[in-house]
Amino acid sequence: MRFLKKPLQLLLTQKERRFLIQITDITGITPGNVHVYRLAFLHSSLAEEQHQSNERLEFLGDAILSAIIADYLFQKFPYRDEGYLTDIRSKMVSRTQLNELAHKMGIDRLVQYNKSDSFLSKKSIGGNALEALIGAVYLDGGYELARRFIIKKIVLPHLDVQEVEVNHFNYKSKLLEFAQRTGKNLEYKLLTESRSNRHTRFKVAVYVNGEEMGVGEDTNKKNAEKNAAQQAYAKLGIKEL
Amino acid sequence: MRFLKKPLQLLLTQKERRFLIQITDITGITPGNVHVYRLAFLHSSLAEEQHQSNERLEFLGDAILSAIIADYLFQKFPYRDEGYLTDIRSKMVSRTQLNELAHKMGIDRLVQYNKSDSFLSKKSIGGNALEALIGAVYLDGGYELARRFIIKKIVLPHLDVQEVEVNHFNYKSKLLEFAQRTGKNLEYKLLTESRSNRHTRFKVAVYVNGEEMGVGEDTNKKNAEKNAAQQAYAKLGIKEL
Repeated sequence: MRFLKKPLQLLLTQKERRFLIQITDITGITPGNVHVYRLAFLHSSLAEEQHQSNERLEFLGDAILSAIIADYLFQKFPYRDEGYLTDIRSKMVSRTQLNELAHKMGIDRLVQYNKSDSFLSKKSIGGNALEALIGAVYLDGGYELARRFIIKKIVLPHLDVQEVEVNHFNYKSKLLEFAQRTGKNLEYKLLTESRSNRHTRFKVAVYVNGEEMGVGEDTNKKNAEKNAAQQAYAKLGIKEL
Repeated sequence: MRFLKKPLQLLLTQKERRFLIQITDITGITPGNVHVYRLAFLHSSLAEEQHQSNERLEFLGDAILSAIIADYLFQKFPYRDEGYLTDIRSKMVSRTQLNELAHKMGIDRLVQYNKSDSFLSKKSIGGNALEALIGAVYLDGGYELARRFIIKKIVLPHLDVQEVEVNHFNYKSKLLEFAQRTGKNLEYKLLTESRSNRHTRFKVAVYVNGEEMGVGEDTNKKNAEKNAAQQAYAKLGIKEL
C-alpha cells in the first residue's frame, strides 16, 4: 500500500499560508506548487546559489509576458502594422512600467532581499519579481493560466493601451517640448522618397537649430519623423524634467 | 433551414491542396484555418495593404518562438543562470539561424514575393516567413501545438544546443583568432574584485597590443572576460573570414 502524501498546504506555517493568500489575491489563481512562488520573490542578494534566486523565473516570465502581450495586441488591433504592435508592446512592458505595476499590485512588498547590502540597486526589484511571478504562474498552471493572470490582473486593470500609447514615449512631442524649453528651432525635412512597386519609403531628418540631429526611415512618413526624433532625443541626451 | 457550409478543403484548388500538404509536412500539424497559413507566406512586396502581409504574423511568431525556447532552455538547464539562458536563446533564434532553418525546412521556397522588385532584400525573407508560420500555427492550433511544432520540427532536428553554444558567437575565441591572425598581443587583466555580502563582482579589461579595448563585469570572472571580449570585438570592427 502506498502512503498518500498529505496535501502540502497542511504542512505550511501561518506565515506561508498568508503568503499563499496574497498570491491568490494578486494573480487570481490558486497556487499549486508553493515552492515556485516562494522562489519568485527570492532576490539573488539572499540566494545561496544564483540558480536558487528568482532570476531564472524572471527570464522565463519576461518571455511569456512578451508572447501574451503580442497575442493580445495582435487580436486587439487587426489593422495595425507590426511596427505599431512592437512599439506599443515595448511601452507596455518597459522596465519603468513593470516597476510601477509591481508597486501598484503590492508585489514589491513581498520580495525578500538582503536589506543590509548597500551595493544593491532596489529600483527594478519589483518589476523583476513581477516577471518572475509570471514565470511561476506559467510553470505552475501553464500558458492559459498565465494568460488569464496577465490579461485580467495586469492589462485590463492597469494598462490602458490608448493611455500607454499617449503617455509613454512620444519622442516627437518630447523633442518639441525640449526645443521650446531651450528656445531652439526644430525642423523636419524630407530627404528622400523612394518608390518600389507598392511601397514608398520616406527618409526624414530632424534639425535642431539647423543642425541635423537624427534621421529616420519608414514606409509611413509620420513614423519616419518619429524615428528621426527618437535618434535626436538620444543624441541630445535629453533629460526628463 | 440553415445551409451547411461545405468543409473548406473541398473548395480548394489542386495547388492549394498541395500547399496544405507541404504545410503538414513542415509543421507536423494538419492545418485548420487555411487562410492564416497562406498569409504566413505572403511577403509585403505583394500585399495590397501592409496588414495583409505576413509581417503581423511574424511579430506574433517571433514572440511565441522566444517564449517556447525560453521554456525549453529553462527546463533543459535547471542549474544555469539567466545570463546563460538569454545568451543561448539569442543564438538559437538569431536572424542568421532562422534564415538557415527556413532554407533547411524548405520554407523559403514557399514564400510569395514580388520577384520584379529590385529594391527588395531577399536575405531575411525565409527567416521571417518561418516566424510568420509559427504565428500561424499558434493562431490556428494554440500554444501547445506551436510548442510541438517548434520542439519536434525545429529544435530537435536542427538545433543542437551544445553545437549552437560552441559554433555561434564565442567572442573570446574570435578575439583570440583575430589576435593570432594579425600578430597582436592579447591580454586580460582583472581590474577590480568587489565584494558585497554573497556576491563577488569581477571587472576585467582586455588589452590588444597593450591598449585597453574592452571592459566587462560579471559575478563570474569568465563571463566578465567574455563581456570584455565582446566589447573589444565590436570596437575593433573585426570581420569574419
